[in-house]
Amino acid sequence: MNFKEAIGLIGPASRANYDKAMERQAILTKPAGALGFLEDIAGKYSAISPEFPPRVPVQPVVCIFASDHGVLEEGITPWPQEVTTQMVANFLEGGAAINAIAKQIGARVSVVDIGVAGDTSGFAGILSRKVRAGTDNLARRPAMTVAEAEEAVQVGFDVANDLIDQGCDILLIGDMGIGNTTPSAALISWFAKSDVEETTGRGTGIGDDHMVVKIKAIKSAHSRLQDEAASSPLEVLASIGGLEIAGMAGLILAASARRIPVVLDGVIADAAAVVSYELSEHVKDYIFAGHLSQEPGARKALDYIGLKPVLLLDLRLGEGTGACLSVPIIQSAVRTLVEMATFDSASVSKA
Amino acid sequence: MNFKEAIGLIGPASRANYDKAMERQAILTKPAGALGFLEDIAGKYSAISPEFPPRVPVQPVVCIFASDHGVLEEGITPWPQEVTTQMVANFLEGGAAINAIAKQIGARVSVVDIGVAGDTSGFAGILSRKVRAGTDNLARRPAMTVAEAEEAVQVGFDVANDLIDQGCDILLIGDMGIGNTTPSAALISWFAKSDVEETTGRGTGIGDDHMVVKIKAIKSAHSRLQDEAASSPLEVLASIGGLEIAGMAGLILAASARRIPVVLDGVIADAAAVVSYELSEHVKDYIFAGHLSQEPGARKALDYIGLKPVLLLDLRLGEGTGACLSVPIIQSAVRTLVEMATFDSASVSKA
Repeated sequence: MNFKEAIGLIGPASRANYDKAMERQAILTKPAGALGFLEDIAGKYSAISPEFPPRVPVQPVVCIFASDHGVLEEGITPWPQEVTTQMVANFLEGGAAINAIAKQIGARVSVVDIGVAGDTSGFAGILSRKVRAGTDNLARRPAMTVAEAEEAVQVGFDVANDLIDQGCDILLIGDMGIGNTTPSAALISWFAKSDVEETTGRGTGIGDDHMVVKIKAIKSAHSRLQDEAASSPLEVLASIGGLEIAGMAGLILAASARRIPVVLDGVIADAAAVVSYELSEHVKDYIFAGHLSQEPGARKALDYIGLKPVLLLDLRLGEGTGACLSVPIIQSAVRTLVEMATFDSASVSKA
Repeated sequence: MNFKEAIGLIGPASRANYDKAMERQAILTKPAGALGFLEDIAGKYSAISPEFPPRVPVQPVVCIFASDHGVLEEGITPWPQEVTTQMVANFLEGGAAINAIAKQIGARVSVVDIGVAGDTSGFAGILSRKVRAGTDNLARRPAMTVAEAEEAVQVGFDVANDLIDQGCDILLIGDMGIGNTTPSAALISWFAKSDVEETTGRGTGIGDDHMVVKIKAIKSAHSRLQDEAASSPLEVLASIGGLEIAGMAGLILAASARRIPVVLDGVIADAAAVVSYELSEHVKDYIFAGHLSQEPGARKALDYIGLKPVLLLDLRLGEGTGACLSVPIIQSAVRTLVEMATFDSASVSKA
């Protein structure tokens, strides 16, 4: 299916299931509201699920979209572009942070080359779906054509559908791409209408000199975009976005259409969520914000969509690390709803 | 061993191991500091561990101390005292929130009757270590004698040592006791010298009428304690504390003496941590604050000791739920430190 057809199929989650969850929370053996945010998570999860009570998710998959960014030629970061390719190899060899965390949490790691500049075709286990070998420099020209952006969204959409067909019941989004906090901040500040300065962060930890260049690059991109009079979300994505962001947006659309929960990671995934939200506001019903990144754009994006992060751990790594860490919390929230005894069944007195 | 002897054996955690952890963090394949609070957790965990690199903890046990509180006769809560006994039965039958969460996280649940008013002697699986059948009314009289408080601390100390002997490598503290946020707030505001009003919360969600009575009860306890001129932490614990709090303090002392990490739950565990901290300041090196409870005393206690909570989920249930939920984060933090590749080993370029 083309992702554009799927957009029309995405509806709101089930209010009836949400209400059933809340009614059930009230009779479980605990003071009302005592599980705090876990009760909200269980309610949202119930609304996503086609059945009530929902099933505890048992097959999480972290899907890491990797790509490169032409804006690197502006000098926005001290990290060389080849690190993207090297880190993709690291993911596949199991040496990255996401591998350790996914192993702990019991999640599978899937790596998609959707636009890495280097050659990854010989990497064992990679999903080779390269749309182009990195974007163009968004500070000066459109990052990609609209056709390329749509192709990248379709890649993410197809990858997500394949993973769901394989039994994945909760999808976690990860990213790798040197320079990708720049298009993320560009997209978030554009769509959420927030100041570039307040939305742009230090990414890997860049210094003041690089920050000045980074903010200037985003402002040029915005002013170019204004001149282009781009209007549709896909045109904006093509002009100032990134290939991994497009792929992630496609994943969110597929998961929402199939009522499978998606867990966001940091600011790159948050930017993708904003893009998918522009395409269908209902996606917000299917999205959990795994954590709040240190990147200021993360807060802007989550506030814009209306999502509250599960974890506040000051992470700024990406790769899906924060998404993955939130999974046991989400699983526990659903499990309490499903498995706890009621005041009646356990013969516990009420206040 | 008597817990008093053990206090003298508790020393600071290993600064050398902490430094080794931080040195290693700097060469792992991630930008410096990108794992945020996870890096601090891994550093603290390394300092606790007798070896470097530390081992990822695999045998978490939630130890729930249950007891009752004579202060209930003041009318501080609408919940009847028999709920303590009923919830103990619920824990043992697997119907409580902590059972669902512990199952998700892979933790064992151990339940200790250290002072329940009701009879639990026939409950299968319970550790029967009743010191007395609930405390006396702390608003009017000492909650227990100093000898009873010491006996309760020893119970927790012995239980912890048994669990560690059985292979438990990370101890999580849970509580059950209708009315137990009252002695907790009393202890925290006493030791941390904070206002009773700012330290006392709504516990299970009590209304304004009960809040007035609760604050008045704590203030009477404090004024009685001032008249008694109690000076030692154990005298204060006996006068205004609770049996489960004493047991938890004993558990913390045992774990610290044996260099096993302890994870606090909510305000009851936080109060116990304050008591143990008064007995030996070094215990803070061995304690992780699993989460920040909604109870205002939790923040006071953690700030007083100098602990930063792992999770902020607005929980206020107790039972060890928040402690348990933080375990995958702690495990993941240690696992990234131990298992990640370095820039050299993975041939990844640096900035």
